[in-house]
Amino acid sequence: MFERVTVLAGGVGAARFLEGLTQVVPPESITVIGNTGDDVELHGLTICPDLDTVTYMLAGLADQERGWGLANETFHALESLKRFTNETWFQLGDRDLATHIFRGSLLRGGFPLSEVTARIVRSLGVRSTILPMSDNPVRTWLETDAGQLDFQTYFVKHRAEPVVRSVDFVGAAQAAPAPGVLEAIAQADAVILAPSNPVISIGPILAVPGIREALHETSARVLAISPIIGGKAIKGPAAAMLNSLGYGASASAVANLYRDFADVFILDETDRDLRPAVEELGMRTVVCPTIMKGLPEKIALAQAVLEAASS
Amino acid sequence: MFERVTVLAGGVGAARFLEGLTQVVPPESITVIGNTGDDVELHGLTICPDLDTVTYMLAGLADQERGWGLANETFHALESLKRFTNETWFQLGDRDLATHIFRGSLLRGGFPLSEVTARIVRSLGVRSTILPMSDNPVRTWLETDAGQLDFQTYFVKHRAEPVVRSVDFVGAAQAAPAPGVLEAIAQADAVILAPSNPVISIGPILAVPGIREALHETSARVLAISPIIGGKAIKGPAAAMLNSLGYGASASAVANLYRDFADVFILDETDRDLRPAVEELGMRTVVCPTIMKGLPEKIALAQAVLEAASS
Repeated sequence: MFERVTVLAGGVGAARFLEGLTQVVPPESITVIGNTGDDVELHGLTICPDLDTVTYMLAGLADQERGWGLANETFHALESLKRFTNETWFQLGDRDLATHIFRGSLLRGGFPLSEVTARIVRSLGVRSTILPMSDNPVRTWLETDAGQLDFQTYFVKHRAEPVVRSVDFVGAAQAAPAPGVLEAIAQADAVILAPSNPVISIGPILAVPGIREALHETSARVLAISPIIGGKAIKGPAAAMLNSLGYGASASAVANLYRDFADVFILDETDRDLRPAVEELGMRTVVCPTIMKGLPEKIALAQAVLEAASS
Repeated sequence: MFERVTVLAGGVGAARFLEGLTQVVPPESITVIGNTGDDVELHGLTICPDLDTVTYMLAGLADQERGWGLANETFHALESLKRFTNETWFQLGDRDLATHIFRGSLLRGGFPLSEVTARIVRSLGVRSTILPMSDNPVRTWLETDAGQLDFQTYFVKHRAEPVVRSVDFVGAAQAAPAPGVLEAIAQADAVILAPSNPVISIGPILAVPGIREALHETSARVLAISPIIGGKAIKGPAAAMLNSLGYGASASAVANLYRDFADVFILDETDRDLRPAVEELGMRTVVCPTIMKGLPEKIALAQAVLEAASS
């Protein structure tokens, strides 16, 4: 059995996978390393969408249908905020605001993000460990045909419609992995890359100096789940982005981005034909259903990944 | 008629008086100088209860029954905040939070409180001018039998129950009147002290260097409405506080606190007998109903005060 499983995670896709994983291994054995490149400062609040999506899901508080935010949410504060400012395109629920207010208060008080995240995670009853990739701010900026945009402006305000020409993780080169991140990779029994956007969800994590090296050096098996199925993403702009950046929108293109450190690549059944192409990159492949419609599919995927990790 | 009426204001009592006043003179002709000694930093937000109470009332958004906050308010963010911290004794509504978030964001961006207040006031459609007494932080601290307490801790957390031994307006000596405050007093046709707690609502305003002198020097008539009726306050700890501080809980004791600058003192009918005592202080007295049950009483009081200002 696995006593220490470490998962590199973006937002919704990762949260869904983690929901299944917590049914297969004890939640306490899981360490999540979360993307903070999508973080955004709005109205003086620091919002960490990916960390929160994972946290809310593991706390059993996520809105499953909408895919982000909390269940039973209201938006009264946001409605009132519209009286004061036009910059209200980012959806902030009333209950969600409590997280951002608490986090902002502690961050301004000098607490590092990793410690603030730990307090939020504990307060919400999550038993897994959730680490930001770094305590230093890293922000994803995109060069697009609509100009240079920070991630949330691109993703929410422009609905991920602009064509992305290049991606920059501002601050990454000067960032250090948050306390526990390198250890979680080095000491894990298995390291899993969740089915998240390889460019803007996993990419920022890999851009923090030391993390990619740790993945290369760890004695744990490193397994990556393709977020691209039949050339398309389940959700979000991954496929379009892989295309416009010249990587190509295929599972094997994703595998190629991970070739220097991944041992196993998990392909959806749809992409069975890509096995040879991925194996040529030096990885073992596993083919299984990867579309997580409901909890049974999430659990089955987690089981398949762990099986590949141990066999 | 009065083209420029300036009102020194605390919270609820002042807001009620101002609601009547805006029915008697054009709202545009009113300048409110608001107490900021009650302001409090909570969860990284700067909350200005007195400024907001007046603003919400003049915007027609106040919860009239509760006496504070916004009508149709929900408290979902506060409920969620309770998961993170025990310091949630201060009631923060979801709609109200928008004000504090917006204000905090601008204050941290370097905007002075007077400018932030003006933006909030305009955004909510208030046509009167609302000025904080100062852009510099002034905080009311109370020496009580329960120890030294900041105002909101005393007032909300301890329900104004501790006996107040002394009052200190921290920062007042170093504070400057906000832009427009001294001018609003000097150039007014009438200056009115709302029926607010003379110690902790009007007191902090008078403690800002220059304001008391401006009241003394203005050519406008200065009129004060007693917040004490028959030895009691309509609401809040004014009477108990006047007693424990040694002033005595009577309208004439309030008049005595204003004797160096007030020209007219408005007594409730109940306190008709106090006329000689107040007039001995060198003020003219007006006796009229001062309890503001509904809008008609608010309007009648405003009319009586303005009549006294012109006669």
